[in-house]
Amino acid sequence: MKIAAIEAIPYSIPYTHPLRFASGEVTHANNVVIKVTTQDGVVGVAEAPPRPYTYGETQASIVAVVRDLFAPAIVGTTLLQREQAQQAMARTIGNPTAKAAIDMAMWDALGRTLGQSVSSLLGGFTDRMRVSHMLGFESPERMVAEAERMKDTYGISTFKVKVGRRPVDLDVAVCRALRTHFGDTIELYIDGNRGWTAAESAQALTAMADLGLTLAEELNPADDVLGRRWLVERTPMPFVADESVPTPADITREILAGSATAVSIKTARTGFTTSHRILGLVEGLGIDVVMGNQIDGQIGTNATVTFGAAFERTSRRAGELSNFLDISDDLLTEPLRITNGELIVREGPGVGVDLDDDKLAHYRIDV
Amino acid sequence: MKIAAIEAIPYSIPYTHPLRFASGEVTHANNVVIKVTTQDGVVGVAEAPPRPYTYGETQASIVAVVRDLFAPAIVGTTLLQREQAQQAMARTIGNPTAKAAIDMAMWDALGRTLGQSVSSLLGGFTDRMRVSHMLGFESPERMVAEAERMKDTYGISTFKVKVGRRPVDLDVAVCRALRTHFGDTIELYIDGNRGWTAAESAQALTAMADLGLTLAEELNPADDVLGRRWLVERTPMPFVADESVPTPADITREILAGSATAVSIKTARTGFTTSHRILGLVEGLGIDVVMGNQIDGQIGTNATVTFGAAFERTSRRAGELSNFLDISDDLLTEPLRITNGELIVREGPGVGVDLDDDKLAHYRIDV
Repeated sequence: MKIAAIEAIPYSIPYTHPLRFASGEVTHANNVVIKVTTQDGVVGVAEAPPRPYTYGETQASIVAVVRDLFAPAIVGTTLLQREQAQQAMARTIGNPTAKAAIDMAMWDALGRTLGQSVSSLLGGFTDRMRVSHMLGFESPERMVAEAERMKDTYGISTFKVKVGRRPVDLDVAVCRALRTHFGDTIELYIDGNRGWTAAESAQALTAMADLGLTLAEELNPADDVLGRRWLVERTPMPFVADESVPTPADITREILAGSATAVSIKTARTGFTTSHRILGLVEGLGIDVVMGNQIDGQIGTNATVTFGAAFERTSRRAGELSNFLDISDDLLTEPLRITNGELIVREGPGVGVDLDDDKLAHYRIDV
Repeated sequence: MKIAAIEAIPYSIPYTHPLRFASGEVTHANNVVIKVTTQDGVVGVAEAPPRPYTYGETQASIVAVVRDLFAPAIVGTTLLQREQAQQAMARTIGNPTAKAAIDMAMWDALGRTLGQSVSSLLGGFTDRMRVSHMLGFESPERMVAEAERMKDTYGISTFKVKVGRRPVDLDVAVCRALRTHFGDTIELYIDGNRGWTAAESAQALTAMADLGLTLAEELNPADDVLGRRWLVERTPMPFVADESVPTPADITREILAGSATAVSIKTARTGFTTSHRILGLVEGLGIDVVMGNQIDGQIGTNATVTFGAAFERTSRRAGELSNFLDISDDLLTEPLRITNGELIVREGPGVGVDLDDDKLAHYRIDV
């Protein structure tokens, strides 16, 4: 159980096509694999996705903070001294995905050591989640075609439409085209990534009032404090806070301030341990929750379903589990498969995925 | 891992002397042992303390609800389908200690199956908690003598003084006598069990302003809604909600309403699973927490330290872990021992205590 080493290995795999949304564009999956190795030779794996425009981390900063601060503080403790590891990492401000990946790699190693699945150790509520697919900025025709392809190929019927373009009619037209084309065979919700103003958001929501949208996420910036509250009060579906609530304290602040009525849990930023605490917070506050995607690769996506399926509240809604489909390759010996619109929890032990060492060697980069 | 049987076994052990406080008096430990047995023959144990005046449960009601509702719903699932068990039990309203004991017995059986301590599986923050001892209603001289005995015999230096008598001077005199006798070598806090009015509470707090009390718990009834808020606003130390917050939703309501500024977590009523969720809630809300005692026997007290020591926030303050000292016997092969004012977490596996079958047969009763 004693942790002998923690490694951070940066890699880069191109996307098949750039992902575009209001807060940026992504062309490569430039993530960092975290490996936690015990003295018994058990290896736990997770990955950290650097999001400089969301959390301020880069590939190089993740590698550095793991090597220089987190690994020295945690090596020598055991996989079961999880709360000590949390406290050791909490001394350093920020760096959420680096912290989360170490936590998840420790959980993976723990599950492997105990011969149990992490999802079961966490809660074991169900063995699968429905998958929600994100549709990036394109013309209505292309976005309908992409949704059609996802529906036909993977059975996905829940779509998160990226919005936040100007004029708002661009995005309204997309949502209307999707609803017109698919009727009520799909669930639709929107994510603005803070691209609109409060007024534009309200205008768009009014224009889409008949489209049956189920969630509205980060339509305008949380730092437009009063505009955001005004908007949330008028939004007729749960208003999801995502990048504005990276920590439990942020959730409390934003929910109590009326700046959101639901939150996104992302294992990429809060790992399994803090995500579990956040679950307690959102259940206790009585708010809605969705399992989000930090533009994760397959390792990160598998972490999301591992956590989300473990609890009733996090498995109610479809999870955002399909971004990896746009990455041209992966690092796993057995890639993830979405079938019938669902992603199944790997049976384990641990989180149930194994790294393909040849692939990691191939895509590994220096930062 | 599959659960083969869940039993509820009522027992009665006399106290060495009656425990007296504002909400009642206890002469016997009339608790219910819960045993969860797996198909592999692993047995997990916990206990439920019936508190009719707090939660409406009796020994007979606990036995009945376990036998008639909870056991049929859970037998056949596995120890790792914890969230399914939670959901199955949640269908039945109330019955908190029956639900909590089943959850904790499942955790004990899980730890035994995996060969690991439950405290480590939960978080593994530390291996011990400082012990707070409750001083029931007596004369100042007797309460000082009792505190002296606890300090000399067990090294305990944190005392929770039961208050709520009329006139308030009775209790003020006790607290003053304790502070005068011990100086600043002890920590003192008070628990009113809703015995005073808001005005009496404020009067008492003023009279004790120089005594350095660290917590004030349930001084007046939470259902005196405005009086309670008025009092909490004026209370110069954390005001602990206990019996007014048996569920996470109650915590949110009472904290946001200004009816408390801290909460008591009792594994006796929220087990390990819901207590973990409550930890997430209180951390996210940023409020203080104390590990409380439901007048637990040794099995229940061991559960409290198992959970409390697992996390940084729940192990900060002394836990209320000594009520069992007043019970004339116990059911364990190895009784708990408080030394140097601390209770050590049993190493496990499970929660680390084993039932003495002869003793259980001796104290077992029919209800």
